[in-house]
Amino acid sequence: MERETPEPAAPATFLRGEEGASPESVRARFERMIRRVQAEVCAELEAVEGGAGGGGGAALFREDAWTRPGGGGGISRVLQGGRVFEKAAVNVSVVYGVMPPEAYREARPEAAAAAGGEKAGPVPFFAAGVSSVIHPVNPFAPTMHFNYRYFETGAPEDAPGAPRQWWFGGGTDLTPSYIIEEDVKHFHSVQKQTCDKFDPKFYPRFKKWCDDCFHIKHRGERRGVGGIFFDDLNDYDQETLLQFVTECADSVLPAYIPIIECSKDIPFTEEHKAWQQLRRGHYVEFNLVYDRGTTFGLKTGGRIESILVSLPLTARWEYDHKPEVGSEEWKLLDICINPREWI
Amino acid sequence: MERETPEPAAPATFLRGEEGASPESVRARFERMIRRVQAEVCAELEAVEGGAGGGGGAALFREDAWTRPGGGGGISRVLQGGRVFEKAAVNVSVVYGVMPPEAYREARPEAAAAAGGEKAGPVPFFAAGVSSVIHPVNPFAPTMHFNYRYFETGAPEDAPGAPRQWWFGGGTDLTPSYIIEEDVKHFHSVQKQTCDKFDPKFYPRFKKWCDDCFHIKHRGERRGVGGIFFDDLNDYDQETLLQFVTECADSVLPAYIPIIECSKDIPFTEEHKAWQQLRRGHYVEFNLVYDRGTTFGLKTGGRIESILVSLPLTARWEYDHKPEVGSEEWKLLDICINPREWI
Repeated sequence: MERETPEPAAPATFLRGEEGASPESVRARFERMIRRVQAEVCAELEAVEGGAGGGGGAALFREDAWTRPGGGGGISRVLQGGRVFEKAAVNVSVVYGVMPPEAYREARPEAAAAAGGEKAGPVPFFAAGVSSVIHPVNPFAPTMHFNYRYFETGAPEDAPGAPRQWWFGGGTDLTPSYIIEEDVKHFHSVQKQTCDKFDPKFYPRFKKWCDDCFHIKHRGERRGVGGIFFDDLNDYDQETLLQFVTECADSVLPAYIPIIECSKDIPFTEEHKAWQQLRRGHYVEFNLVYDRGTTFGLKTGGRIESILVSLPLTARWEYDHKPEVGSEEWKLLDICINPREWI
Repeated sequence: MERETPEPAAPATFLRGEEGASPESVRARFERMIRRVQAEVCAELEAVEGGAGGGGGAALFREDAWTRPGGGGGISRVLQGGRVFEKAAVNVSVVYGVMPPEAYREARPEAAAAAGGEKAGPVPFFAAGVSSVIHPVNPFAPTMHFNYRYFETGAPEDAPGAPRQWWFGGGTDLTPSYIIEEDVKHFHSVQKQTCDKFDPKFYPRFKKWCDDCFHIKHRGERRGVGGIFFDDLNDYDQETLLQFVTECADSVLPAYIPIIECSKDIPFTEEHKAWQQLRRGHYVEFNLVYDRGTTFGLKTGGRIESILVSLPLTARWEYDHKPEVGSEEWKLLDICINPREWI
């Protein structure tokens, strides 16, 4: 991928000239949505920190914007070392890229077959998304991750008549160090309500997909208590699905902020903090070994600091640590090993 | 791989019955060597900690031994939370395994071709090695890693006449957070002296191999200041190479201990410690994303705690951290980006 150029301020759109001028295209509407969500999530997290008009010295988001010579770019917003949030990042990006034929065959087997199978060449693609990881200070306050993205592939360069493809992907999931049942139930019920507005099959399907996806295979553990996750979603009309992912993204704050408000000031000990740090170690393992966004980004020359901002500020690895059977730490681990139905 | 069975005490040999009874075989001599080196390195590190007859309460190595039902096993020895060493692990293992045909074709292309090329089936292998990572507390005391291993492949199960193969691999490398030139020169000169006894071409070749191997590609940085690394070594007779890797393993303590003695009590600030923690973050990135031993071990069901014991006790990731140009932190980074000749 071409190197990024830092920009002093984010441009009004990252879309290429002619596309930026078509405000009703799915690309343009999706870009506006992710940028609005980025602004709203950051504003709300700053409010929780007590910034944005609150007490002096509250941690605020820092912004880095960049573009790429051939079109596209992104905005990383990062808050670090806050009173409530140890590290919080909300990124948007728009990418015009070219996918190697193997990646295309894996992502879109039918379209690749229609375009000439093994013989099809590289495929131009468009991708846009919002992606966020929020690591609070308090060990009773869970880490939250969400990501919503829109993808289009063109026809392979040597098969201009082959079918074009589009799909949506994303999800919202929660990673506590300690289980507070009401919080997990609240989180899942917000996801379910959003899904149920569109299709009653969505929540059970996407809840399971999330458990399967955030799986630290070498430990036989899920990363946390899940939420929803989906990919390759194109089996409804584009308008409905754009609406669906918009509502999913808009449900992030109602799902998460009440949990943070309840947990951010719970008193904790050094032992609670040490356990949180061990869980953060497993979070790092998942992100560096299995997370497709991370491993793909590292290999294809994405902006490293934006990709790795998902890692916690600090993490810990103790040899052969095993929580005492029946302890609160053990209960969390048990749920990560045996995912539950929450509603 | 079959699950491991914990053993209350390490058996005299991990070799299968008939092999354990042939004390002069390369397998048996290599196993004795790695177990002797494990014992010597642990004893020396405990002495530095002030344990083993020194002051009361000094950190000592804990030992875990295991076997596998089909033969083989290992011993992990880990010291954690010491005065000098934050985390130090010295592991030995002996593996009787079966390699998928693709892995065999990649590792031994000529032998695989002789055995029938694409048609050759799974290949039995034997591997034994000692592996160690030592993370000191003091930010001026460097992390050190070494690993020496012996590999044999049998003929593919469906091509019993195909050639059998053997090779040695390994290396010793240093990862400081701050550059102390004399220390790095001492470390490299011990490696060079050991190499020069066998072949004057070894040191330059294995020094470069090490720089190429411990490369955090997404950052364009080497993990540290290198040392030596080699793999697939079988272009001398087996006796000479067994002697060579033995001398390499025996040079670990003379290369490292004088550096630790000089650096373990250097006064340091919180800023020095924070920089060390950021460097540890990059160490974690290398090990989880690129290190072949780690990624292979995680995928093939090795003993997770023994594989991941290479990770530091604690690590840190700050968004877009850049040391001030000309600072000591910047000098380290510059050397990681542009590897130097040290002697």
